[in-house]
Amino acid sequence: MSENARRKLAATAARKAGVDALLITHLPDVRWLTGFTGSNAAVVLPVVKGARPALITDGRYTAQAKQETSGHRILIAPKSAVIAATEWMAEAGIRTCGFDDGNTTVATLKQMQAALPANLRRRMFQPVGSLVSTLRWIKDDNEIRKMRAAAALGCKLFDNILEQIVPGIPEAEIALALEYNARLAGASEMSFPTIVASGPRSALPHGRATSAKLPRRGFVTLDFGVVLDGYCSDMTRTVHLGRPATDELRVYEAVLEAQEAGVEAVRAGVTGGDVDEAARSVLRRAKLDKWFTHSTGHGVGLEIHEGPRLAAKQTQKLEAGMVVTIEPGVYMPGKFGVRIEDTVLVTNTGAEILTPSTKAWIQL
Amino acid sequence: MSENARRKLAATAARKAGVDALLITHLPDVRWLTGFTGSNAAVVLPVVKGARPALITDGRYTAQAKQETSGHRILIAPKSAVIAATEWMAEAGIRTCGFDDGNTTVATLKQMQAALPANLRRRMFQPVGSLVSTLRWIKDDNEIRKMRAAAALGCKLFDNILEQIVPGIPEAEIALALEYNARLAGASEMSFPTIVASGPRSALPHGRATSAKLPRRGFVTLDFGVVLDGYCSDMTRTVHLGRPATDELRVYEAVLEAQEAGVEAVRAGVTGGDVDEAARSVLRRAKLDKWFTHSTGHGVGLEIHEGPRLAAKQTQKLEAGMVVTIEPGVYMPGKFGVRIEDTVLVTNTGAEILTPSTKAWIQL
Repeated sequence: MSENARRKLAATAARKAGVDALLITHLPDVRWLTGFTGSNAAVVLPVVKGARPALITDGRYTAQAKQETSGHRILIAPKSAVIAATEWMAEAGIRTCGFDDGNTTVATLKQMQAALPANLRRRMFQPVGSLVSTLRWIKDDNEIRKMRAAAALGCKLFDNILEQIVPGIPEAEIALALEYNARLAGASEMSFPTIVASGPRSALPHGRATSAKLPRRGFVTLDFGVVLDGYCSDMTRTVHLGRPATDELRVYEAVLEAQEAGVEAVRAGVTGGDVDEAARSVLRRAKLDKWFTHSTGHGVGLEIHEGPRLAAKQTQKLEAGMVVTIEPGVYMPGKFGVRIEDTVLVTNTGAEILTPSTKAWIQL
Repeated sequence: MSENARRKLAATAARKAGVDALLITHLPDVRWLTGFTGSNAAVVLPVVKGARPALITDGRYTAQAKQETSGHRILIAPKSAVIAATEWMAEAGIRTCGFDDGNTTVATLKQMQAALPANLRRRMFQPVGSLVSTLRWIKDDNEIRKMRAAAALGCKLFDNILEQIVPGIPEAEIALALEYNARLAGASEMSFPTIVASGPRSALPHGRATSAKLPRRGFVTLDFGVVLDGYCSDMTRTVHLGRPATDELRVYEAVLEAQEAGVEAVRAGVTGGDVDEAARSVLRRAKLDKWFTHSTGHGVGLEIHEGPRLAAKQTQKLEAGMVVTIEPGVYMPGKFGVRIEDTVLVTNTGAEILTPSTKAWIQL
């Protein structure tokens, strides 16, 4: 889908919301709509047919905006892009504008209103939520191709790092090697701080790699993602150093079964709550659900955390083209933890796993 | 300064603002007040003497919160930390609460209000801006020590990367080597995407490293920072490959003179506008100011961009203990650009440069 087609989709959503224009300031939304990757930007999408959208940024990005984007006017503002966008809308005769109240601070809204003529202040800005972010939940073919490539790189990095996972190596060294190889392979950055959590630290669901040395016996959880061509990958595997204790094996098997049940439950039409329950109920039967302290998954794309959420009671239905994680875990404070995570593409008939690295027990 | 002392400072600021309590949700503020480094947290600081503050987070961080923090109660909430904090305040008899309207979205404030009993909704939440962020502008001895270490690492990395800057190498490879060495030296991450902008790309003030190869002749701008022990470094140097043209030399000299004038202007008591003008006026005299399209600098600390701003007309006075960047640049689209940046500590008598790598013309 071209950026122009995406802007049309967004304008249609704005028209349904009953506003004259849509103001977009959340940067991943800006990128999706225009291709612009700068760090200060606003997009105004007029709903009226034929009216040209505008990309507003500042002087640092004059050259970059011209280079990266087309099909709309580019305005260079000496001040905040969103304030310049507000003034431009008022002059252009726009009288009501949908804004993303989930990504606009209370202070910014106040400044936006102060930049309007008094007669427009009361009605101009209408909260419409993340209209564009929601459109981004469903990936087009081009995006799916990019997400496939990012996920495949993640798998390759995982497969290659295994030989470096030996007792005595600091967690941070594993993370560093992984990130170095990611960058060598073309990743622009990691999609979040790499988690390498070993031994008792594996019980920290978000245990960023530290100087702690890998133990002779125990779990090592690796949770990481790359950003490739703008799109994020996300995967977790938990491997074991040395011979496991009985309860370690039992927990691993249960988490794996829960994860596979979650993947199995995915297809267009089921709710986020259904998928969460599919995974959670396996752990409940194993009497481990009290240690599963987070939700089952989330959407991934230009951002590492997007919608839909796969969590208890979520009624949002999955649709074909969504890309989501399935990542149950069990964390026993002071003892150990296990998490297994795939990124999957939702299809009409099920889930296609984008991260096919083995989930079988790996003992190193 | 201990975290406890910082909480007292913040409580004093809240008392002056006339509220019963302060609600802190901006994560660098949370870290500064408590030491907690998790990704979901809220802190409630009651103003009443003797009332204990509370740190609210979720189940993923139970172990980490206990490990990293002390001196306040820890509440583990199954839901959004800020909503749990709101409910807790209502139950604890808090009737007015200052919140950071610059870091709270319109949608979140609405949810916070919806979580209150009807009789509290109208008066509870009062916008007080970034009270804690403003306290963070002035660094204590412990923070200055950390910022010195981060800045020193940045300089070492710059000095060591010079030998790798040769024609034909992709910009991204320079960035990667620099980042790899940063991590080996203990940096947890880079403080922003590394800029390596060569040849005509040096005219992009924020030109992230690409696959473009370094030219045989032309500028290479390196702008990068590390995060060491939580604190950010920030520095820019522009070096030249091969023999320069006359206008390249002229622009470099002017930017260097402007940068030094900016540093020279820094001391406790002057305004951000004064420092900006000191640098900008040098470029104005050289008839280059129309190409200096951004402000002169910003504060640095736990965040890469903090206050105060050093920009035209800023009336905020510098104070001893602030750490700010001085980074004028000249960017000629399609031709070339030059930026030179130091991070400096504001003292009562002047500026102490934390990034002493040479700013003399470097020809490689």
